[in-house]
This record gives sequence, C-alpha cells and structure tokens, in this order.
Amino acid sequence: MPGNSFGRLFTITTWGESHGPALGAVIDGCPPGVPLSPEDIQRDLDRRKPGGRLTSPRREPDRVEVLSGVFEGMTTGTPICLAVFNRDARSRDYDEIARLYRPGHADRTTEQKYGIRDWRGGGRSSARETVGRVAAGAVARKVLESWGVRVRGFTLALGAVRCQTIDWEEIHRNPLYCPDAEAALAMERHLLEIKESGDSVGGIVEVRASGCPAGLGEPVFDKLDARLASAIMSIGAVKGVEIGEGVRAAELRGSENNDPVLPDGYGSNHAGGVLGGLSTGMEIVVRATVKPIPSIARPQQTVDRNGHPVTIEVRGRHDVSAIPRIVPVCEAMVLLTLVDFMLHPLPARDAQLNPR
Amino acid sequence: MPGNSFGRLFTITTWGESHGPALGAVIDGCPPGVPLSPEDIQRDLDRRKPGGRLTSPRREPDRVEVLSGVFEGMTTGTPICLAVFNRDARSRDYDEIARLYRPGHADRTTEQKYGIRDWRGGGRSSARETVGRVAAGAVARKVLESWGVRVRGFTLALGAVRCQTIDWEEIHRNPLYCPDAEAALAMERHLLEIKESGDSVGGIVEVRASGCPAGLGEPVFDKLDARLASAIMSIGAVKGVEIGEGVRAAELRGSENNDPVLPDGYGSNHAGGVLGGLSTGMEIVVRATVKPIPSIARPQQTVDRNGHPVTIEVRGRHDVSAIPRIVPVCEAMVLLTLVDFMLHPLPARDAQLNPR
Amino acid sequence: MPGNSFGRLFTITTWGESHGPALGAVIDGCPPGVPLSPEDIQRDLDRRKPGGRLTSPRREPDRVEVLSGVFEGMTTGTPICLAVFNRDARSRDYDEIARLYRPGHADRTTEQKYGIRDWRGGGRSSARETVGRVAAGAVARKVLESWGVRVRGFTLALGAVRCQTIDWEEIHRNPLYCPDAEAALAMERHLLEIKESGDSVGGIVEVRASGCPAGLGEPVFDKLDARLASAIMSIGAVKGVEIGEGVRAAELRGSENNDPVLPDGYGSNHAGGVLGGLSTGMEIVVRATVKPIPSIARPQQTVDRNGHPVTIEVRGRHDVSAIPRIVPVCEAMVLLTLVDFMLHPLPARDAQLNPR
Amino acid sequence: MPGNSFGRLFTITTWGESHGPALGAVIDGCPPGVPLSPEDIQRDLDRRKPGGRLTSPRREPDRVEVLSGVFEGMTTGTPICLAVFNRDARSRDYDEIARLYRPGHADRTTEQKYGIRDWRGGGRSSARETVGRVAAGAVARKVLESWGVRVRGFTLALGAVRCQTIDWEEIHRNPLYCPDAEAALAMERHLLEIKESGDSVGGIVEVRASGCPAGLGEPVFDKLDARLASAIMSIGAVKGVEIGEGVRAAELRGSENNDPVLPDGYGSNHAGGVLGGLSTGMEIVVRATVKPIPSIARPQQTVDRNGHPVTIEVRGRHDVSAIPRIVPVCEAMVLLTLVDFMLHPLPARDAQLNPR
Repeated sequence: MPGNSFGRLFTITTWGESHGPALGAVIDGCPPGVPLSPEDIQRDLDRRKPGGRLTSPRREPDRVEVLSGVFEGMTTGTPICLAVFNRDARSRDYDEIARLYRPGHADRTTEQKYGIRDWRGGGRSSARETVGRVAAGAVARKVLESWGVRVRGFTLALGAVRCQTIDWEEIHRNPLYCPDAEAALAMERHLLEIKESGDSVGGIVEVRASGCPAGLGEPVFDKLDARLASAIMSIGAVKGVEIGEGVRAAELRGSENNDPVLPDGYGSNHAGGVLGGLSTGMEIVVRATVKPIPSIARPQQTVDRNGHPVTIEVRGRHDVSAIPRIVPVCEAMVLLTLVDFMLHPLPARDAQLNPR
Repeated sequence: MPGNSFGRLFTITTWGESHGPALGAVIDGCPPGVPLSPEDIQRDLDRRKPGGRLTSPRREPDRVEVLSGVFEGMTTGTPICLAVFNRDARSRDYDEIARLYRPGHADRTTEQKYGIRDWRGGGRSSARETVGRVAAGAVARKVLESWGVRVRGFTLALGAVRCQTIDWEEIHRNPLYCPDAEAALAMERHLLEIKESGDSVGGIVEVRASGCPAGLGEPVFDKLDARLASAIMSIGAVKGVEIGEGVRAAELRGSENNDPVLPDGYGSNHAGGVLGGLSTGMEIVVRATVKPIPSIARPQQTVDRNGHPVTIEVRGRHDVSAIPRIVPVCEAMVLLTLVDFMLHPLPARDAQLNPR
Repeated sequence: MPGNSFGRLFTITTWGESHGPALGAVIDGCPPGVPLSPEDIQRDLDRRKPGGRLTSPRREPDRVEVLSGVFEGMTTGTPICLAVFNRDARSRDYDEIARLYRPGHADRTTEQKYGIRDWRGGGRSSARETVGRVAAGAVARKVLESWGVRVRGFTLALGAVRCQTIDWEEIHRNPLYCPDAEAALAMERHLLEIKESGDSVGGIVEVRASGCPAGLGEPVFDKLDARLASAIMSIGAVKGVEIGEGVRAAELRGSENNDPVLPDGYGSNHAGGVLGGLSTGMEIVVRATVKPIPSIARPQQTVDRNGHPVTIEVRGRHDVSAIPRIVPVCEAMVLLTLVDFMLHPLPARDAQLNPR
Repeated sequence: MPGNSFGRLFTITTWGESHGPALGAVIDGCPPGVPLSPEDIQRDLDRRKPGGRLTSPRREPDRVEVLSGVFEGMTTGTPICLAVFNRDARSRDYDEIARLYRPGHADRTTEQKYGIRDWRGGGRSSARETVGRVAAGAVARKVLESWGVRVRGFTLALGAVRCQTIDWEEIHRNPLYCPDAEAALAMERHLLEIKESGDSVGGIVEVRASGCPAGLGEPVFDKLDARLASAIMSIGAVKGVEIGEGVRAAELRGSENNDPVLPDGYGSNHAGGVLGGLSTGMEIVVRATVKPIPSIARPQQTVDRNGHPVTIEVRGRHDVSAIPRIVPVCEAMVLLTLVDFMLHPLPARDAQLNPR
C-alpha cells in the first residue's frame, strides 16, 4: 500500500519533488457543485510561501493550476488535479546532498528503503512536498466552509516562548501567525538570535475547528483523534500530537479532566472536542510539536554515501524554524481529516433527513 | 469506510461488545507457516486481565479460541478468527448507564452518531474492546519475533510519579509494569490514595521496538510515525502521542536534536528511530499519554437521555487508572503497526534478495 | 492487501475453513437500527444447504450464531460477527487430497502461493467458504429491503438446457431454483444422467435487482458493473460475467443495443440497468457462467505432492453441479455490492435532502 | 470511497476530462530503479490514438509529460505524475450534448448522480479518459517486462467476424490489431459497411499474459480473476468478461473442462491460467465483450434536460467501433492488475528468498 494518499471519501494523492518539473495533488471525492477558483487555493498557498526576514529568501511563486475537475467555476465530482510548476529550482545549491547524508533528514533512510534518491533539494522528503497538501486543504476548506465548519491554526510556542492569550485577529497581523502580539515580538527576537547562532529551533502549532456536528469519527481504529494524530504526525517535522489537554492529562485527576455534560453541550472542553473517538460538537483542539529544522549552519558529524565519516555544514537558503510556514500545513491536514469524516455516513442524522 | 479494521497487509478487524456473547478479532494477511498456539495468545491476554489490589475486581477469564486459519499448529495464510466468549457479564451493575450519559465517556456521542447504543458495560466503547487488539497483537508478536523484532512497553509515569531508571527485568516484578522499582512503590501508594479519594488518575506509557530494519514506513501519509500515532491514539484513553523527544522537541535547538550519523547507525536517538517517516534501524520509541479514567465515585453533573440535568456517581467495579492494564494494549498497537510495515515492499532489500 | 474483505462502507471479512472449528463473517459498516434476527440469516443459509437427490448428501446443519453487533434485536452500527460452527466434518473422506493435487481445484496453486495447505475438505478454497458470504448477504438483504431494493437470482441454464420463460413464483417450487417449470424438469433429468456418467456440468445463473435509485457506482474504476463483475467472479466456480446483453453485445449494432431514453426511464434494458458504470434505475441484470464441478468420479491425470504422476478418482460426497446451490451465493454477492453503493454519497440526492 | 484509483500496491489515480486542460494519471507504488522514458509511454499511447480510415479523424497528438517520480531516467519509488495536455478540443461540435441526454451514454446517469455534468465531449465519461490508463499501463509494462511478464491483446471478433487463427506477428500489420490476416480484411469491410449505414458495431478483445509465476491473486475476494474482471469491466464499453473457456464453460462437462495436472504445468489451459483465484503459471487468458458505440448517425429517441422527448442524431467525429482502439486499453488494465499482484507477498517464494 503506497503512502501518498490520504482520506477515504475525500481522498488526496500528492506527487512531486522539490526540484522536479512540478508538484501537486489529485483530489478524488470532492463533492460536486462547490464554487472553486484558483484564487481560493492560491490564498492558502501564499501563506506557506517563504518571505520576509524570518523565513528563507527563496523566490517560490507557486502559482497553482487546476488541470481537471472544475467546469464553469464549479467542482463536478470528478478528480481535481492541482499542479504547481517549479520555476526557481537552483539545484546546484544542494549538490553536497548528493554525496552526503544530512543529519536529521531522510537522506539515508530514503536510500536504505528505495536504493535510489532524488537528492535535489531533498526530493520528495523536502518540506516543499507540502505544497500539494496545502492546495488540497484549500479545496477542503471551501467545502467545509459551505457546511459551516471553520479551521484555524496558529503558533502557540516557538522554542521556550509561549503565547499567553489568544486574539484571533492578531494572527493575521504578525509574520509568525501568533495570536499574542507580545509573544510574537519575543518570538521574532528569538528567531533572529538563533539564526545568528547558526542554529534552528522548534515550537508548537495549535489548530482549532469549530462548527463540526457531533458524531464525526469511525471507532475503533479510525476515531477522529486517531485520524487527526496520523494526519498531523505525517508532517515531516512533527514529533508529538495532542488532543485537548494532551500530555497534561497524565497528571490530572478524573474529577479535573472530565467535562460536565450539559443539555446543549459541555461545561468545559478538556477533551478537545473528542469523546470515544467521536466529535462532541465542541471546538476540536489539536496541537503539533514541531522539531527544530535539522539543516543548520554548524558543523555536524555524518557519513558520505560510501560510509566514510565526514563533517557537514549545511549551506543554502534554509529557514530557522518550520514555524510559521508549517501552520497552514497543519491546518491543511486538519481540514482534510474533517472533510473526509463529514462525507462518512452519520447514521442518526442520515436516517432522519434521508430515508433513501 | 467503517473503522474496525487496522493494517493494510496484516489487517485486523475487531468485533464484540463488553457484555455481548463474545469479543474477538479476525486477522487477514498473517504469513503462513508461523507456529501458533492458543497459549501464545493467552499470555498477552492475561497481562491485560484485571486482578490484584490495584485493578478492578471483575473476574474475566478471557480464554481465547482460535476458530480458523491454523492447521496442525501452523498458520496457513488464511484469516485467523480469534474469539473470547464473555462469561462474567453482570449487566445489572450498569443499568444506570442506560438512562444517563456518563461524563468523559462516549455514551452521548455514540447515541448522537448511531441513534442507538448498547449501553451494557459501555458496549463497543468499553475498554474491554481491546481484548481483540491484544489477541491479534500476540499473533503479530509471534511473527515479528521470528524476524528478530522485539516490542516491549512499560509504565513511564502515573500521575506525577515518573520513572527515573529503566530496568527491563523489573517490569515483570511489579504489578504496574514499571521499570523502576522505587517508582513502582510510589505509584502503588499513589493509586491507593486516589482510590480512597474516589478519584482516578492518568499516566504515560512508553513502548520500544528493537530489531527493525531501516526503511519501514510509507511516505508521505503512511510514515511509520504517522501510523504509530494513529495506532496509539486509537486507544480509548490516549490524548497524546510522542515519538523520540516528542513534546520536548519544541524547546530544543537543531544542534541538540539532530542525531550524528555514523557509518553503522547514529550517535544518539533523539529521533526515536524514525527519520522522514522511515525507520532508521535504531530503537523505535513511542509514548502515549493516558487520561484519568472518567468513571469516578464522585458526584458529577450530566444529563439523562431526555436531556434533563442529573447528578451521577458512577458505581460498579472500575479501575482507578487505565495504567497498568493499558500497557499491553499500547504494545499490541505497536506490534500491529510494525508487522504490517514488515510485509510492505522494501525495494532496496527486495531487489537484492528477490529478483522475482 | 489481503483478500478476505469485500466492500468499502459495508465491509465484510469472511473467515473459516471447510473442516475447521467454524466459518463466518464479520460485517463492518452495517447501518444501526435495522431489526435483525438469526432467522433472517438462517433463511438464506438454508437455501445453499445441500439436500435432496440433486445435491450432496452431506448433513450440514449450518446454524448461524450472532456474536456481536446486535442489541435488543437491532443492529447498533458496530461489527456484526456471524459464526457457523462445523459439526459434520468427516475429514477422513478427503485424506487423498492431502497427498494429491485435484485437477481443476486450487490444491497446487494454494501450496505454490502459501507453502502450506489445509487440505481437509479443500480448506479455505472449499465451496463451503461461501457460508460467510451468504450469511453476510442476508444481512445486506435486510438493509436493502428496508430501502425498497429487491434482489433475486435463478438458474438460467444447466449445461445446454436453458430457460425459455421467467416465472418468479416457479423458482421456489423446484429444487433447481429455475423460473421455467419445463426447463426445471429437463435440468433434473440432465443432472441425473450426468451423475450416472460420473461427470459434472456447468450452467448459468442470473441475478436481477430492482428498486435501486439511479446513480449508484463510482466511476471510473469502481463502476457498478466493475464491482459486480469482481463480486461475481470472486465466486470459485465462475468463469464469465455479463451485464445486460453481455456477450451478445459483440454482435449487435448501436441502433439495436441503445435503449431509448424516456422521461421516466428507458424504452428497453439492453444495458442491464447500468450506463457509464452508474445505475439507471432500471432492473440490474447480471449473469454468471458457472464451470462444471472439477471433482468427478472418473479417473484423471495428476501429480502428487512430490511431483510424481498419478491417476486420481475423486471420492467423497460431491455435487454434480454447483447449480443450484450457487444461486444464493450469486445473490449474496449482488446484495453485498448494492448495499455498499447505497451507503456511498449520492451527491445530487444528498444535497437535496441533506444540507448538512 | 471515490472510484478513480485502481490497485493496492501499484496504485493509479486517473484524472481529467475530455475537453479540460489535461488528462493523466498518478502512479503510486512503482518500484524504484526502473528505467523509464517518455518514449516508453508514448508508444502505448500512440496505439490508442485515432487515425486512418477506420477510426475517428480527430487529431489528438497526446504527448505525455512526466511531471514527477523519475530522476536521471530512473523511477525513484515516489509518485509518477503523467499528464497529456489537451490541444484539439473543439467543444462546439458537442454543444448538443449540453441540452440532451445521448442514448447509451452516461449523460443522464451522471447528472442524476452528481447534479452537474461537464458535457464537453462527454467530460470524464468520454473514452478519452482511458489516456491515463494507457499511460499508466505502459509504466506497468516496463516493470513487468523487467520481471519477464509479457501482456498482449488483440481483436478476436468484430461483430460476427471472428478470428480463426492467431498469428502474433500479424497483429502489428493490420490497423485492427487482428491476429488473422483474412479476418482483418473482412473486419475492415464490415466496419466500412456499418459506417455507411450510420450505425456502429461491437466486438471481442482478448488479452493474454505469459511469464507470471504461480500463486498471484488474493483469495477470496481479490482473486486474480475477480480483479481482472473488475479491471476489464471498468472500461466504458465492456459488457462481458471471460476467463479461459468463459461462457463456454456452462455447457462443458467436468471431464472436458478440467486441465490435467502435469509435474511442470498442465496438459491444457481451459482454466485460462487461473485456479481458485490464483495464477497457475500457464498463460492468463481474458476476454472482453465490447458493446457497439452508442453515438450513431441515425435518429434516436431521447429527452432533453427538462425531460421533454426529442429526437437526437449524434453528429461529430465518432468511431464506428471501440475496436481496435480499445485493445491497448484492455491490455493496460491487465498490465495494471498483474503488476499489482506481483508486488503482493508471495509467501512461499518470499520465505525461500527473503528471510527478512
């Protein structure tokens, strides 16, 4: 079972290498009759584009083309092929990768698995692979918004700097997609310090979804939280996934962690919107821990393709942190998970509305 | 796509309710020619059985029967149906569940999704559902052990009590499956205190796998860590999943988190045995955060099936913590994930050994 | 991807060997709230039971047990495990199979694939494997009937004897499930002749489904007819599948084969109820060509497990034709295909009835 | 579960509409290290191109572009995206389709299912959709040929004209891909007659595969023949699928139909290379019955989108028969089915060659 597809009823297959002719995604199962324009997709792609002082100076125009599945501005229910053609692919910057295995990257494991590796820019294991995810996620967003479901992500922490407040409007005002203006400034300073030290840093992204009906999820193995965990952990840099209280739940008592059940909802949301693997109707809360970017300007110990020890100092135009560019990627994975479950049968609702 | 199956090439489907006639699993894709006896399975089932001062006093003999797929003591490659018939199912203890929605449980979400609910003992969302997982995991263990892969889990933390050392032998000596004798004693004391207070507590389970070849995992969505995250998060009580450094990675620098690449391995294992979604050949390290059991002896606010507010005080024979009984369940999910990937093509190896 | 599951949203997994402890099926995805009793299933199982002059004299009581998924007489949406325990399994009749490969059977190919074979009664490749299919099909029938869909099969031909008329009532009056009383008599005579000659014979089964809405099927690879073809061809003895005009279409002109489009349907049904892989709303018409049973009382050339040529004369209690016992099996496969597609999104209908 | 993917381990997803920007396929699971050039794919695409007196005069250059998954002339194991950009898409010829439902086409069923329809050239249900299949099939052919598997298709019958001999060399000498020179001439004459009468005609395609090991197929639902039936029936015009003796098996006796088992194979091949759903190692023989093309120049009864009866006379550049252009499509589907099974575990072989 090859692994480049995600979703059961809204299924995406992503394709493309960092420095190949193009990257993209095919969406199979998108409902018909949804208005969709390239701009709808471009908006999200632009949010993951590099730019500014904080992120890599590469110019990636990343213009999406819709090659199928849309007719007169509407989806038709047939596969939607989205493509972004690569233009600024200077592979010479990366020539060293051809000979060496970069620490913290998939260079050696890829070669151990496949026996061959497209080393240009990291090939398929480059973060650029997420172009297809974000493009497909933007289509999912259009569908979900037509059903009243809204998904928003933000930077919760960068290294040890953590948000203290959540102001949704603030997210769009700072380059870190951070909902706390003060924390955003501290994060910017932190990033520049780390950049100067030739190092990199991790962080935490939080994504919240509101407007979901109760009952999404397919127990016992495709529970909503299980699928979210898989979706989020499939992003290259992620090492931890939490739902609601997450790792804090280890130290809580039942009397603290249980959410009182009210006639129309719950008295709190420690559960993060999921009980028994099914959505509760409350806000769905997911967090991703992002590791520091492994490409750093400091000397590191590694081996070349012949197994000889060498010292590597990764050059090229690299970000200091996967944050904030990973925020729309995390959002995309939540969008894709939710749109899929929205298409699954919800028997109690379907029986009422739809006698077939 | 219903959700009671797990795995692509070694696929299990679990079935059964807490108080129905039986619970079990069907395994499809088990390699033929593997010696398998009911005792092999019983051993793991016994580890998740309740017993002792620390866990629920219910008597669940849980004798497994092998209904198909084994011939003259060997697997044949056909589906293996495993069944455990329920014997001690006193549903009267649970009658209150029929009328009320227990906080922290799937009672209301199940009814919202399906419009109907087998309330006896929690039905399918009971922790007893994991009988099928553990039984199937034991078969996976037999297969993996024949390939030199070993999977072991333990209690890393109970509430705020955390292990300081890992002594593999100690795990079998204390009822908490804890690798630190001193911590085990503190955990026992802690459990009894919480029991007396009518409350419950969470904790952390760690599972490690050794002996895996490099290259397991199917980028980009079925990465080894993504599948592990899904597997672990599909366990009822789990709210967080970590690989290697996990949530600690947020605060690390690249220079701290990167593992030096050596000719025959890596100089450290911050990655937890996974790079780019592929196994590195190092030990695979997964952690699950387990929430406190929601059934507590304290009064809680909830509603009945008619939506009227009521106070509930959950009676019946309940554990104080999902730990330690959840340890073999976590192990089972790692076993099932790994055996599945071991059956996937590993092109570099296959091309060498197997010219077809 | 192991092969013992069928269906995407109403998924069955069958398990069990001819002479193992039990056979059965797990159904995952059955809608909740459907009344279901063992008798509903037994009725269809009884139709595939041997009995009478025409079929094998083995006594197979085949009592189905429902091990999960039903609560107070209703399905709950959780997996339904159905089991039939084997009682009359005299494996000594089959001892010769252990040493030899029977011509026309899967004995050698099974051993070539798996390296091991449960030879008792043919193991998993016995026709007895269809017990699980028919039991699961009976559940599908209950669901489909609640939606107004009716599926009926019959014997269209036995060897060269072919029905000339279709009288639905007649099907239940003769042991051949033949809708033409005169043909039924000729078939009975034919079967007895062939039995006396120590040979076997094939035939044709037709299954028709009425009451399906237009639009079932998932182009382009999971078209309704493609899934039906797969479903029917997965039955051991089937060598040909036809939809509507089937193989006759090769010699027709477009002007003969096209069905005129009427405001409320079609002026004819050469298409057999499927256009472009989607149901038209007309009767769905599927035919299966069944090969003669390979176990015959005549001497045949084969080899033993060591590759030495031997002559085999299959003893034991064998049917002369897979017809009529295969009729409910063909029905079951059509039922399972249709119930699955009924659960798939039908966007035009869903948008109207179900604004989500 | 959307339906535009085929295969489990060598999975293709096709996309694109007849008159959209492009059509293509994404292949996920192609083994790495296989030499692949656009020419390898173009060769098969050219065989399905229209041209000559016998087929439609449309100019479709159909140049394939490889957008991902190939590095330095070799596959890398990552998804291969193949695209053919549409150039000669004169949709005005088809304007009538916008208003009317063409008999024998998917126009009305598509609209009944999706509520919307890209009517230009038939949209996704156009025969042009098979461009993606043939392109992906050509990649499968490269892989299979490296393993010694060869797949060849031919026209067995056109209307009532049927081949009497099979001369593999002859297939490439006549425009009908017919292995019998005399029959080819008769078929050409027949096609022209039918063209002049404004009608269309069906036929039969046969595909044979040699070089497959014994044991391919996954009982019981993904048997080799079941998957082949699904693959072939998923082609728009196909109404019947046969394996080996196919529909003739209905009238055969067991003593006629059984293939004697020899130490190194079988004494005949009535089974068409499949026993118990597993390949025998003999030639695999599959036949497809192709219906007459529904677009004919004669007046036919239909309705418009408002349900009003109208008479339609399909104009535009249409073939008289799907034969011979459908031959490479049938080949492609057999190629895709076989390559997929070649990647599945073959336990008996794997245990021998591959101790893991």
